[in-house]
Parts: sequence; C-alpha cells; structure tokens
Amino acid sequence: MFGRVAIIGIGLIGSSIARAVRARGLARHIAIADRSADHLERAEALGLGDSLHAGADAAVVGADLVVACVPVGACEEVAKLIARDLAPGAIVTDVGSVKGSVVRQMRPHLPAGIHFIPGHPVAGTEFSGPDAGFADLFDGRWCILTPPSDDVDADAIARLTAFWRALGSNVECMTPDHHDLVLAITSHVPHLIAYNIVGTADDLEAVTQSEVMKFSAGGFRDFTRIAASDPTMWRDVFLHNREAVIEVLGRFTEDLIALQRHIRWGEGDDLFELFTRTRAIRRGIIGMGQETPAADFGRRKG
Amino acid sequence: MFGRVAIIGIGLIGSSIARAVRARGLARHIAIADRSADHLERAEALGLGDSLHAGADAAVVGADLVVACVPVGACEEVAKLIARDLAPGAIVTDVGSVKGSVVRQMRPHLPAGIHFIPGHPVAGTEFSGPDAGFADLFDGRWCILTPPSDDVDADAIARLTAFWRALGSNVECMTPDHHDLVLAITSHVPHLIAYNIVGTADDLEAVTQSEVMKFSAGGFRDFTRIAASDPTMWRDVFLHNREAVIEVLGRFTEDLIALQRHIRWGEGDDLFELFTRTRAIRRGIIGMGQETPAADFGRRKG
Ligand SMILES: NC(=O)c1ccc[n+]([C@@H]2O[C@H](COP(=O)([O-])OP(=O)(O)OC[C@H]3O[C@@H](n4cnc5c(N)ncnc54)[C@H](OP(=O)(O)O)[C@@H]3O)[C@@H](O)[C@H]2O)c1
Ligand SMILES: NC(=O)c1ccc[n+]([C@@H]2O[C@H](COP(=O)([O-])OP(=O)(O)OC[C@H]3O[C@@H](n4cnc5c(N)ncnc54)[C@H](OP(=O)(O)O)[C@@H]3O)[C@@H](O)[C@H]2O)c1
Repeated sequence: MFGRVAIIGIGLIGSSIARAVRARGLARHIAIADRSADHLERAEALGLGDSLHAGADAAVVGADLVVACVPVGACEEVAKLIARDLAPGAIVTDVGSVKGSVVRQMRPHLPAGIHFIPGHPVAGTEFSGPDAGFADLFDGRWCILTPPSDDVDADAIARLTAFWRALGSNVECMTPDHHDLVLAITSHVPHLIAYNIVGTADDLEAVTQSEVMKFSAGGFRDFTRIAASDPTMWRDVFLHNREAVIEVLGRFTEDLIALQRHIRWGEGDDLFELFTRTRAIRRGIIGMGQETPAADFGRRKG
Repeated sequence: MFGRVAIIGIGLIGSSIARAVRARGLARHIAIADRSADHLERAEALGLGDSLHAGADAAVVGADLVVACVPVGACEEVAKLIARDLAPGAIVTDVGSVKGSVVRQMRPHLPAGIHFIPGHPVAGTEFSGPDAGFADLFDGRWCILTPPSDDVDADAIARLTAFWRALGSNVECMTPDHHDLVLAITSHVPHLIAYNIVGTADDLEAVTQSEVMKFSAGGFRDFTRIAASDPTMWRDVFLHNREAVIEVLGRFTEDLIALQRHIRWGEGDDLFELFTRTRAIRRGIIGMGQETPAADFGRRKG
C-alpha cells in the first residue's frame, strides 16, 4: 500500500500503528523516529521497524507516508524538523487528539506539494510507551480525518482512508473545529472530570485514602482508569483545545447544578427521567459495536 | 451457619446472595419474598430459594437472618410489614447503598429482641433483577456494617461478619453517617456525574447523538456504564443521601472550576501535577485487589 512509512514517536499509538502495518503488510519499509533513546531501544528489541532514527528528519527521507504520533504540543517542532526532508507528494498526517491546533502548528512549515491530512484514531488505553501498543487497537474503532481545506487532493485522502480501513477502522471526515467540539464531549471533558473527581477524593479530609481505595468498587474505580492516562498527553490536549473544552464544561456544570437542585428539593421524578434517558445512549453505543454488552465491562477481578 | 435466611427483594443483590448462600451451604432454608410476581417466577425457575413468598411477612417467619435487598426508599415499608412476624433473636440487615436513612426508616418499627445491623456490600454491576445476580459477586469486595448504636449485641455482629466473610467479602464496621460520606465520594457522586455527562452529551445541539456514540471510545463510553444503572435504585440513593452528596458535590464543583481556570490561563504545570497525582490512586486500588491491572479493564471488543 505504501513504500516507506515513517512513524515519528513510537509510544502507544505509534507502536500500535507500526505493529498493525507490519502484521497487515501495508508498507515495504517502516522507519521509526523517537527523541527518547529508551523508546528507540525498546522499538528495536520489539522489532517494530526496519530502521530506527534519533531524528525525525532522517526517518522521513523517501517516505510516502509520515505519521506524527507525538503529544499535541510537540507537533510544531516535528513539522519544522521534517519540512526540508519530506519527499514531494508525501502524505503527512498525525494522530493527535486535537486537530485545530495541529493544523495551526504544522501547516505553515510544510512545503508545497505535500498532502497534509491530520487524523485522529479514536482508540486507546490508559497506558503509554512502545510496550503498550498492540496491532488490533484500531479494529472496529473510528478514525477521524480533518483535511484542513477544501483543496486537499482527493486521491491523497482516499489513500489515507484506505490505510486506516486496512488497520481495521471506520473513517469519517470533518473539519478540524468540529472534531475538536465532538471530542471535547466524547473524550476531553470526560477525562477532565475523571481527573477532577480523583483529585477531590484525594483531598477530602474526612475520608481516608485507604477508604477511598477499599470502597472504590462502588463506581469510583471506573474513573481512575482514564485518570491514570499519560499526564503529558493530557496536559497538551487541554492546553490545545481550550475553547471547546471550556464551552462543553460550561454545559456540564450548568446541568450538574440543576441536578444538585433536584436533589436538594427532593424532585425524584426529574432524577428518574434523566436516569432513564441515559440508559438509551449506552444501548446505542453497544448497538454500534463501540462497547461490550458484558456486565461491568467484562472486567476481570482485581 | 443459619437455619432460615429470608431475602426480601430478589434483584441483582438479593439473587446474588441467594446463589452464594446456596453454593456455599450457609443456610438450611432460603426464603425469598418479592412484590414482583415476575421476579418471583424467575426466582422459582432459577431455583434460587426453597420457598417463595409474595409477602415479606410470610418469608421472615422462623428466619434467624433477614436481609432486605430492596431500593432504599422501600425500607420503611418492609420494616412495617415484617415487624410482627420476626422471630425473637433474629438478625435483621439490609444491603442498601445509604445507611443513615435506612436506620431512620427501619429501626422505629422493629421490636425489642431483634438484632438490627444495617449493611452494604460495595459490589454490583449496571444490571438489575434476578437474572443479573451471580454467586461470586461479593468475592474480594468489601461489605460495610453500620450498627446503629454501641449497644448492638457483639455476638450478632460477629455472626453477620462471618456470614459476609463466607460470601467472600472483607468486612468493616463504621457509623451510618460516616458510611454515607464515604460512599458519597466512592459511589454516589461518581454515579451522579456519569448520569450528568451523558445527559449533557445528549443535549448538545452542535454534536449529533450518532457522533457521540461513534466516538465514545475516547472515554465517554466508560461513563455510560454506570449511567445505565437502575433509575429507581439511584433516585432513592440521591433522595436519601442528600446532605453528604451535596457536600461532596460542592467540593467536586469547586475543584472543577479551579481546573477550568488552569485551562483558561494555560497553566500547564498545575494540570500536569494533578494528572500525575491521580495515577497513584489507581495504582493503590489495583494494589488492594479492588481493580484489574489489565489495560482498558480487560474490556472485550464491542
Ligand atoms: N493514548 C491514547 O489513548 C490516544 C488515543 C488517540 C490519540 N492519541 C494521541 O496520540 C499521540 C501520542 O500519544 P501516545 O498515547 O502514543 O503517547 P506516548 O505513548 O507517550 O508516545 C509518545 C511518544 O512520542 C515521543 N515524543 C514526544 N515528543 C517528541 C518529539 N518532539 N519528537 C519525537 N518524539 C517525541 C515520546 O517520547 P518521550 O517519552 O521522550 O516524551 C513517546 O515516545 C498524542 O498526540 C495523543 O493525543 C492518544
Ligand atoms: N445494584 C448495585 O450495584 C448495588 C450494590 C450495592 C447495594 N445495592 C443496594 O441493593 C438494593 C437492591 O438493589 P438491586 O440492584 O438488587 O436492585 P434490583 O435488582 O432492582 O432488585 C430490587 C428488588 O426489590 C423488589 N422490591 C422493590 N420494592 C419492594 C418492596 N417494597 N417489597 C418487596 N420487594 C420490593 C424489586 O421489585 P420491582 O422490580 O417490582 O420493584 C426487585 O425485585 C438497593 O437498596 C441498592 O441500593 C445495589
């Protein structure tokens, strides 16, 4: 499908792509770059690529597909680094969880003749680094592509779409701004409130940390999973999707205060109505194949 | 261990107790009562008990252990119904997710000579009804007992403790009020914010329901699990643990607003500090055997 694929950043997402590209035979050569010597060493030990590079610039030489898999805040640096060495006609994409900012960071540095199509596979786990990746991470999940303008080459979009389909994903295109709003509600604000409640629990003086942990099976432990995600990645997400996150958070808080008022005034019917409505959403998600129907996520005992 | 155990309410929790008592041989006779004819029929078909009763009063006759497994708001009704038929010396307990209110609802109706020791197994799933239960639900989880005063018979507490241990649980005693505060943070407020964010997502005009569902693997779908829990049970929890829920919610909102401010002003170090601190809590929960260490809860693909 591609001659040389360059993967910049060999963490959870980069290494999952490398594994999937290898397993599905989607490239003749996989070139891997990472600024971390440790990660490059692990990538070598795991046999993730055909060539390993300390510098992203060396990795992209001769590549017809370049995938930046670094934290959102590192995208401008990567664009500057690779700009001179990109092969004419190459597709440059990324996997960052925010898209408007990635466009603003990368586009100004990329030369003419490059097809720049940012992307975001909506798939992941709470772990990071090259050991955390696996080849079927993207299977059955959605990948969003956000061509930054109407004049992006249709063939390039089709090739990148075919690539993600070959990784097992469904593909949808939308504008970077719409992406950032959709992900604010389906990912960024959920992470923020998970981080927040874990912090609140940690700070309560009247409840010990040991009590919080022992009795976490009442629901709290669900939140600790996403609140254990990589701090660098998530700091960058919030710094780079500020407007949409603050907008959705405003709605969330408004709704929460209304709910608190229902509790204060004993308005049981209003609570019941919301608690019934929310069940339908989960059924829909299960119906779309985006969630397991098994009780408790099919979770194994701790 | 017991002669006759009466289980009032044969839903998720009641039927899990019935199954575990049977599997572990903890009683000679299991008497089941439920106001729902359907649930009694299912209980019969599933072979959950030795006798089935439409009225809780008939079930408790001759029982040395009575376990109310009904929504918190139904506890007073159950106490009134069974009071006259309780055997002297019987232990009366419950499994309700709120404890102060259960004490206020039940204690005034119970005759002298009864050992009243409310309880709460901190274990469950998002499903309800007699088919949802399973015998090892309580394995490795914690059960909290809240003797409502200092003069509760120590032998009775020891017998009930041994019962929960035999069901596989760890047991801890605390006051009803402390229970209600601890569970507000480890269970009730987490459920409330899960219900709330699912509601917020459903209400956004700029993002379609289909988009919310497709891209839910970004984190949102985790919240839909607990937001699919039984509406009656959860309405009752919030109506009956109002003070503690509102207190903890106040803290949560205060912290969230501080976090929003950090995002607005680009204070990345503060975000990074919180996001690092919260990881430790999950490690503690996993270390205590209350959570699986597997990525993504070991979740199976939708
Ligand atoms: N995790 C998820 O669930 C998920 C899901 C979808 C999309 N994403 C997006 O995917 C991207 C990568 O996330 P990840 O989870 O794969 O993170 P990760 O496991 O931490 O991997 C990121 C890798 O990039 C390296 N890196 C950082 N800055 C770099 C730079 N300037 N040049 C070269 N390499 C650099 C990191 O090395 P160091 O360790 O030295 O920093 C690390 O090896 C992020 O943009 C994130 O928003 C993540
Ligand atoms: N679910 C959890 O994760 C969990 C965990 C720990 C503790 N708890 C507590 O356990 C209790 C039961 O919850 P559950 O999840 O087992 O609920 P469930 O599956 O809905 O079962 C409750 C059962 O009680 C019956 N019932 C309701 N009112 C009754 C009454 N007045 N007299 C006799 N039976 C009555 C219900 O019948 P109808 O269907 O006709 O109403 C149903 O069969 C609640 O207090 C809850 O707070 C739940």
